[in-house]
Amino acid sequence: MVPAAIIATKRDGGEHLPTEIESMITGFVSGEVADYQMAAWAMAVVCRGMTAKETSVLTAAMLNSGSRLPRASDRPRVDKHSTGGLGDSPSVILAPLLACFELDVPMLSGRGLGITGGTLDKLEAFPGYRTNLTSQEITDQLRAIGCVITGTTPDIAPADRKLYALRDVTGTVESIPLITASIMSKKLAESLDALVLDVKFGSAAFMQNISDALRLAESLVASGRNDGLSTSAVLTAMHQPLGRMVGNACEINEAIEVLECHTSSPLGSVTLRLCSELLVATQRASDLASAEMKLLSEVESGRPLTRLKKMVEYQGGVYLDRLPLAMTHTVCAGNTGYIHAIHGRLLGQAIIELGGGRKSMGQAIDHAVGLEMLVRVGEHISAGQPIVNIFAADRSAGDVEKLSVARHLVEQAIVIAPGAPTATPLIVPL
Amino acid sequence: MVPAAIIATKRDGGEHLPTEIESMITGFVSGEVADYQMAAWAMAVVCRGMTAKETSVLTAAMLNSGSRLPRASDRPRVDKHSTGGLGDSPSVILAPLLACFELDVPMLSGRGLGITGGTLDKLEAFPGYRTNLTSQEITDQLRAIGCVITGTTPDIAPADRKLYALRDVTGTVESIPLITASIMSKKLAESLDALVLDVKFGSAAFMQNISDALRLAESLVASGRNDGLSTSAVLTAMHQPLGRMVGNACEINEAIEVLECHTSSPLGSVTLRLCSELLVATQRASDLASAEMKLLSEVESGRPLTRLKKMVEYQGGVYLDRLPLAMTHTVCAGNTGYIHAIHGRLLGQAIIELGGGRKSMGQAIDHAVGLEMLVRVGEHISAGQPIVNIFAADRSAGDVEKLSVARHLVEQAIVIAPGAPTATPLIVPL
Repeated sequence: MVPAAIIATKRDGGEHLPTEIESMITGFVSGEVADYQMAAWAMAVVCRGMTAKETSVLTAAMLNSGSRLPRASDRPRVDKHSTGGLGDSPSVILAPLLACFELDVPMLSGRGLGITGGTLDKLEAFPGYRTNLTSQEITDQLRAIGCVITGTTPDIAPADRKLYALRDVTGTVESIPLITASIMSKKLAESLDALVLDVKFGSAAFMQNISDALRLAESLVASGRNDGLSTSAVLTAMHQPLGRMVGNACEINEAIEVLECHTSSPLGSVTLRLCSELLVATQRASDLASAEMKLLSEVESGRPLTRLKKMVEYQGGVYLDRLPLAMTHTVCAGNTGYIHAIHGRLLGQAIIELGGGRKSMGQAIDHAVGLEMLVRVGEHISAGQPIVNIFAADRSAGDVEKLSVARHLVEQAIVIAPGAPTATPLIVPL
Repeated sequence: MVPAAIIATKRDGGEHLPTEIESMITGFVSGEVADYQMAAWAMAVVCRGMTAKETSVLTAAMLNSGSRLPRASDRPRVDKHSTGGLGDSPSVILAPLLACFELDVPMLSGRGLGITGGTLDKLEAFPGYRTNLTSQEITDQLRAIGCVITGTTPDIAPADRKLYALRDVTGTVESIPLITASIMSKKLAESLDALVLDVKFGSAAFMQNISDALRLAESLVASGRNDGLSTSAVLTAMHQPLGRMVGNACEINEAIEVLECHTSSPLGSVTLRLCSELLVATQRASDLASAEMKLLSEVESGRPLTRLKKMVEYQGGVYLDRLPLAMTHTVCAGNTGYIHAIHGRLLGQAIIELGGGRKSMGQAIDHAVGLEMLVRVGEHISAGQPIVNIFAADRSAGDVEKLSVARHLVEQAIVIAPGAPTATPLIVPL
């Protein structure tokens, strides 16, 4: 196969033969297909698209570039994937909660990317928490407690790792087929029985409008089902942070609150919905309503919180009921009116400025900084009313400067105007 | 400037700022923009296109990556460019002919590419002919005899050389803006006063249909005029080889025939038209008709043939009135009817099989092999009538095999069917 000829097929809007896609991926991993050829092909895919069949073949080729996690028990194995956002910590709740229903949850998570927080970064707020478990350690932990949240192992979809790094620097991230193959190749490698996808829409999400989010969700579901995996998706709003808390330790604390029965918040609602989808998919419940009843009852038993504590300790972490946060600095409303918008991208930048996210790869982060949102879109507020707490370090002159920048970003992020805005639903079923 | 952000602009169909294009090209030459980033950008340009303004900026950026040929005399300086085809040797006639009109013709030519012959390969059929003249040698020769046909010097548009090599292996050749910038950056570097473009259309041309050829011609002309260069174009048919002869020494022999006053052939007609455009552009003639009269009269004087001989000798070659050809093998028509098509791509493959073209870069070629077309599209022929002479080496068993493959390709290339086909014009003015 000549790479330039395969590239030209996609450039001209043609549909690839399975062998063409497979030879591009195996050639890319082996080095026979050069980075510049893969970059040109990725751009052709961005511009011309792919059929559902091509996307499935690409997903399988990336999956088959590595190995699958071995099975650990006879329990059904489930996971969820979120397309990322702010204050988005359902994973921390979902994994121990579902493990209490005799399900295995082998969650291979990532780090923060751009303004989006990363589950591994959040859990590392527990001192000593390890995120580099081996495949054997994952298997052992699943067998023992049914849940694990760790980083991807090197033998999971290595083609995706190499391709993602290339896409990141060649403007070829924005493609539903490429995103689908990237996400699903890693999820299929977890040897799951059921998967639920939390596809975000809104200003702080990758997909800003609901129709793009719907297209991505449909592509992800089709790819999973094509591989015989029970897959469902919900669209959830990311017009503002999902949780009240934004930041690493901040979000862990809010997740613990949910497991302490504060389940009626937006974070709790979305998490229960995602768990319900998986209980139905694994015949733990007959429908979503009865699933939610069972979940609430289980949370009330206190067992899921104990399971989270066990998971943290199994992974070498010191469990704390509340993680310490940096000093609180309150931002108050400058005028009276309705909250019309909360620009998550600016809040995400504020977190990065405070040291809670990364400006460059590998940078250390300060887990104790973050934001507490005291208001949500649609609420009426009065001038002078506290609207956000900023948790910021204040040990040095540099810290004071960072706080000043973050405060300015937070003030810009929250748009107050007369007249109630139209409401956006939190959860949109597919 | 972040390359990924510039790439994303074009990916999303946006128009580049001049500084974005300039930073991509200067960064590519310096190594700051990686090959894979340039490949992704080139594919985005292929898919999304470029405005005339963007194309001009790209052309200028590639031109400015190197230097321009210095002026050699007060004589107006002219050149022509052909988009390539089979039996396409006007350059060999045009350069010495126009030099006889007190014009300088600094022709920087290329080698065969795919099925397309290359002027440098053809001229090297003269034993000893040098195609690697330095910039100083080009200047000296122009001053002395007014014409030179040599390879591009290293300081002519180095960005184009690097980009073309990348496009060739990434399926990004087929783009009018990229082709325009590649051709025009090199032609503008010749410091010309007038340029004529011979844009081919038809089955053996890069642009198979006339509307694509027209778009390319318009883009090339706009780019030249934007730089203040008097630029015109003609579209010429490449549904069959332009000349009667196809191959290296073969085509030199036919070019010499034209300079010996056999000017009424298709090769002669196209060459005279291209020369006429340049005589009008440089005020050597008031219109195309009077230009053609002057050209015919000049050819009859014998001076242009003498000038060709001088040029060959100036460049170290041994001039011969007729270059030796390999053994002749005649192919006869299998049936009676009209010639409906002569598939140039198959003829080009036949030449490559005979050793007259390259299968890989740098391969030595046999100048003596080639084809003589005894018929043209539209002619009525009888079964058994000779239609093509193949000039093929016959020194070894390998040669016999090559001839057999070439003969099969030639037989396939010539389509004979009942009923006269519709005629295609040879020259279509822009």
